[in-house]
Amino acid sequence: MAPPPPGPDGETQKQVKAESTEMASQRRPISNILFIIAMQTEALPLVDKFQLIEAPSSDSVFPEGVPWVRYSGKYKDLTISIVSPGKDAALGVDSVGTVSAALVTYASIQALKPDLIINAGTSGGFKAKGACIGDVFVASDVAFHDRRIPIPVFDLYGVGLKQACNTPNLLKELNLKVGKLSTGDSLDMSPHDEAAIIANDATVKDMEGAAVAYVADLLKVPVIFVKAVTDIVDGDKPTAEEFLQNLAAVTAALDLAVTQIVDYINGKSVSEL
Amino acid sequence: MAPPPPGPDGETQKQVKAESTEMASQRRPISNILFIIAMQTEALPLVDKFQLIEAPSSDSVFPEGVPWVRYSGKYKDLTISIVSPGKDAALGVDSVGTVSAALVTYASIQALKPDLIINAGTSGGFKAKGACIGDVFVASDVAFHDRRIPIPVFDLYGVGLKQACNTPNLLKELNLKVGKLSTGDSLDMSPHDEAAIIANDATVKDMEGAAVAYVADLLKVPVIFVKAVTDIVDGDKPTAEEFLQNLAAVTAALDLAVTQIVDYINGKSVSEL
Repeated sequence: MAPPPPGPDGETQKQVKAESTEMASQRRPISNILFIIAMQTEALPLVDKFQLIEAPSSDSVFPEGVPWVRYSGKYKDLTISIVSPGKDAALGVDSVGTVSAALVTYASIQALKPDLIINAGTSGGFKAKGACIGDVFVASDVAFHDRRIPIPVFDLYGVGLKQACNTPNLLKELNLKVGKLSTGDSLDMSPHDEAAIIANDATVKDMEGAAVAYVADLLKVPVIFVKAVTDIVDGDKPTAEEFLQNLAAVTAALDLAVTQIVDYINGKSVSEL
Repeated sequence: MAPPPPGPDGETQKQVKAESTEMASQRRPISNILFIIAMQTEALPLVDKFQLIEAPSSDSVFPEGVPWVRYSGKYKDLTISIVSPGKDAALGVDSVGTVSAALVTYASIQALKPDLIINAGTSGGFKAKGACIGDVFVASDVAFHDRRIPIPVFDLYGVGLKQACNTPNLLKELNLKVGKLSTGDSLDMSPHDEAAIIANDATVKDMEGAAVAYVADLLKVPVIFVKAVTDIVDGDKPTAEEFLQNLAAVTAALDLAVTQIVDYINGKSVSEL
């Protein structure tokens, strides 16, 4: 009943064209950065730092009724947007987690056509992998730890491993710590999660990164992950308590690192990072 | 730095307007149904049944590069679209789970403006709650079982309980079984998942429903969940094996129920269901 799908030649040509467009865009200076930040507490200091303005709801690029918040402005040679999924309409808490993060990343890419995405936020860190409270990590790659599908190939899809944008010069110049990021929708860590996090070889754990990576990969936009450690997952203190205690102070460390990264990016292309 | 948010009066007026638009749309006959179906195996028999045509990639309502597949056509007085997240570009397996389901639901609502969403598919069932292989359930409500956030109010956000569209006449007329649906990104069930599923009082367990419900609620589109049981979660057989064994046969039972539901919907408004 359905018309025949495009033949392999058409697909190959389209792919080659997409790849060459992608390579060309990697050599142009970056002019448009999109931040995806899950919590308002994490976003607001950066909004102030870059002197961004909240888009009024009359000028929203998003559908009516969604709680998504967009701040934007110029900083040096860059257009910067910070998008947060905002407060849940019924409950009033930040819309954390993979589903909201995927949705705002998708809608923001469609509306804003960024050259680069930066997913910045707080995370849990593993002291066994060298993480301390207040450390800021750039992720080399990202995977899920709570999508177990024990059927061949589906298991790999569940893990959803994606590489972050390769930024050797940025990492060297700013002397940033590098680690692997593992994502799940729970703030705590079950034994099953722990086994998957170890299999992912993760130094930091968050609730959004791999979903942002999935969408960025789908739409071919390079993405960087900057994650500051608010709590030690393999430590003595309960995660929720430690997270809330350290949130404000660690956010300051995150902002400093993000500002240095943005200053470094200014004037450069993706392939120069 | 940001302009003041709209005052409570403006918000209230907007909300009243949105609610009256929603109520009016509930009284119009349904003309446009969107199916969200995670797997091709689940979708194709319905594509045949309703004689739908796959949209060629030149006529895609979705961004270039996404694997999302849309079939559409007329059936009786209805425009029917079936959208699936399609095969993962790198791995070739169906893009199951909450992130993909949320994305295609969002993009499809934006592009197709459906009057009603039906999320149909296979599920695990709990014999302790009366489920048997081949049973088809309509979900009364939907929640997540793998988003544990042990901070007050965030915990409720994580569970993400949403009501399905209220359809007392449809349920009575077609003598359909009703149960609660619990969603998570794993095919298996960890002890933590099990505790949350019991707390959700679920009869069936899937990998997409609560994400579809979240997006439908965000964009104010009524949604129905139709889930056929391919495996007994609290039984003796391993889920993955039982799932693969029963997939084709149970899909036939699902199609029969879905066809009956669509025939019943034809000519009626949402408030008559």
